[in-house]
Amino acid sequence: MVPRIMFGNGCFDQLPTILNKKRAVGAPFVYLVDDVFKGNDTFINRIKLKGNDVIKYISADYEPKTSQVDVIVTELKEEFQLLPSGIIGIGGGTLLDLAKAVSILLKNPGKAKDYQGWDLVKSPAIYHVGIPTISGTGAEVSRTTVLTGPEKKLGINSDYTPFDQVILDPDLTKTVPKDQWFYTGMDCYIHCIESLNGTYLNAFSQSYGEKAYDLCKEIFLGNLKDEESRAKLMMASWHGGMSIAYSQVGVAHAMSYGMSYVLGTKHGIGNCIVFDKLEDYYPKGVALFKEMKAKHNITLPQGLCKDLTEQQLQTMVDVSLGLTPLWENALGKNWQEVMNEATLKTLFLKM
Amino acid sequence: MVPRIMFGNGCFDQLPTILNKKRAVGAPFVYLVDDVFKGNDTFINRIKLKGNDVIKYISADYEPKTSQVDVIVTELKEEFQLLPSGIIGIGGGTLLDLAKAVSILLKNPGKAKDYQGWDLVKSPAIYHVGIPTISGTGAEVSRTTVLTGPEKKLGINSDYTPFDQVILDPDLTKTVPKDQWFYTGMDCYIHCIESLNGTYLNAFSQSYGEKAYDLCKEIFLGNLKDEESRAKLMMASWHGGMSIAYSQVGVAHAMSYGMSYVLGTKHGIGNCIVFDKLEDYYPKGVALFKEMKAKHNITLPQGLCKDLTEQQLQTMVDVSLGLTPLWENALGKNWQEVMNEATLKTLFLKM
Repeated sequence: MVPRIMFGNGCFDQLPTILNKKRAVGAPFVYLVDDVFKGNDTFINRIKLKGNDVIKYISADYEPKTSQVDVIVTELKEEFQLLPSGIIGIGGGTLLDLAKAVSILLKNPGKAKDYQGWDLVKSPAIYHVGIPTISGTGAEVSRTTVLTGPEKKLGINSDYTPFDQVILDPDLTKTVPKDQWFYTGMDCYIHCIESLNGTYLNAFSQSYGEKAYDLCKEIFLGNLKDEESRAKLMMASWHGGMSIAYSQVGVAHAMSYGMSYVLGTKHGIGNCIVFDKLEDYYPKGVALFKEMKAKHNITLPQGLCKDLTEQQLQTMVDVSLGLTPLWENALGKNWQEVMNEATLKTLFLKM
Repeated sequence: MVPRIMFGNGCFDQLPTILNKKRAVGAPFVYLVDDVFKGNDTFINRIKLKGNDVIKYISADYEPKTSQVDVIVTELKEEFQLLPSGIIGIGGGTLLDLAKAVSILLKNPGKAKDYQGWDLVKSPAIYHVGIPTISGTGAEVSRTTVLTGPEKKLGINSDYTPFDQVILDPDLTKTVPKDQWFYTGMDCYIHCIESLNGTYLNAFSQSYGEKAYDLCKEIFLGNLKDEESRAKLMMASWHGGMSIAYSQVGVAHAMSYGMSYVLGTKHGIGNCIVFDKLEDYYPKGVALFKEMKAKHNITLPQGLCKDLTEQQLQTMVDVSLGLTPLWENALGKNWQEVMNEATLKTLFLKM
């Protein structure tokens, strides 16, 4: 888990003080920053670069890839004589996951794809800090970094993946567009539903999942003021992430991974598109989701899978069904008696 | 915060595997174990001592002292040529706090009393593991270790205080006597009330505090089965501890520290004795506490302070009023306008 956490409006300004203690002579801090902040000098100047520190702007328009991690790692090794003092990810799930993966790959040989799976990382990562600028993914707290590789979309799940430091500053989420706010917030809500309805559930995950669920209801169905809503969604994301750290996600994530692998659908909206059709698996959760969707006038794209080739559909199904722990959590040890290729294809074709 | 957590019935048996990875050649693991487990071979054999590992049995009949920490540290330095591979605390708040303090003092010069306060520890502690065998104190997660020193009862609050690893095995709390279960559980409940009603509250502490509060209501006023109740109280303790990690306790803790300093009253029951008379400060919380007390047929000692000497009462008041952050959290920046020596003496004399 994350050993150091800072929380509060404006606490982003503590970053330089925190990093100063970790700075090695001649070794830069590398900031991976969502490129929506490019040109936003007011924000960027708060980072206070020093020495050979560098910012790399990265688009979050696409889900993060193992190849992208490899390129950044190679660049950093070429650009600098020393390994960085630390990697700081500033953005949503994409940026946070890239920061985690880069910090691991800087200290572990081979390619990012070699570490997709569970507990394959052998050496501790470089010091890494996560600063979410949108809430819901749980990437700030999780022990995974979900990447699309040449063969699969799967996380690098390891004890070395979690950030060493997280800065939770709800003010940083002020400028998130409404639809993105909803999709990413629903990532958190769906984590809770999957965790709380899963066979892996235990009192640890349950207590975190229930709190995140309660907060989501307050945020998406209540009437909170903006400032309170931002702070609470940041905490909901945190608790939702903690809930799945000791449990698992389920049907929605398994399917949205498959969809994203083939269509490149972004994680937040992908989860929403899938979850919207899962009333047979999560009846109560889906009903509440539809209420939230209605309250915020969200219209989801339809018919994404109807024109897929047979090969594309097959790949989607294969990637999904390969995520055994997710299906086992959702449907139990004998999940293959309930879920098979044909059923999954039918489900995908509804989307 | 605690970077590694294990949760689940029976997970105590994972301890040898976890420690093997941290063992340095010739450097023992030192187990500080509550002496109620002395002679309980079934339990003790699960520890699986190796090499020059050693168990030190310690009574939890008294609150932990700075002098006690100094003695253990001196003994360990005399007994072994190398610093230990790690310190493992097994027991309630007393044992967990001792383990945290010993691990700090093995790496920092001087006496334990020198570090009572906030952020006075300069060097990282030795690897230390916490294994609670009773739930409620939050000592397993907190960044403090509360010690009675020559001049004050105050914690060593630092970034190096939290455990490196915590093992949460609800089965270990099976044998806790009912009255102790109640008193220690109420430590958690009172943490929540103090945190949620404090001026330091923020969305981080609030979300943890609310969850711990909800769990306490389920546990102490609901009708849970024993196994579920044990697991949930372990999580309530965790969340309650997290809530005050980023907030503070309040009137009950400030007063019970004073009482304990003079009378040696144990923390759990001391909090209950004090909280029972705090309806002016926490009306709703105290009312619910009285319901819980009635449901579990708990009778608290009365009249503890009526025979104190004037000097004893004065010391009690001085130790309490010295805890500025607690009063500030409870009553605001201008707390001295509300609370003074005379008011506090009157309150103590009710107890």
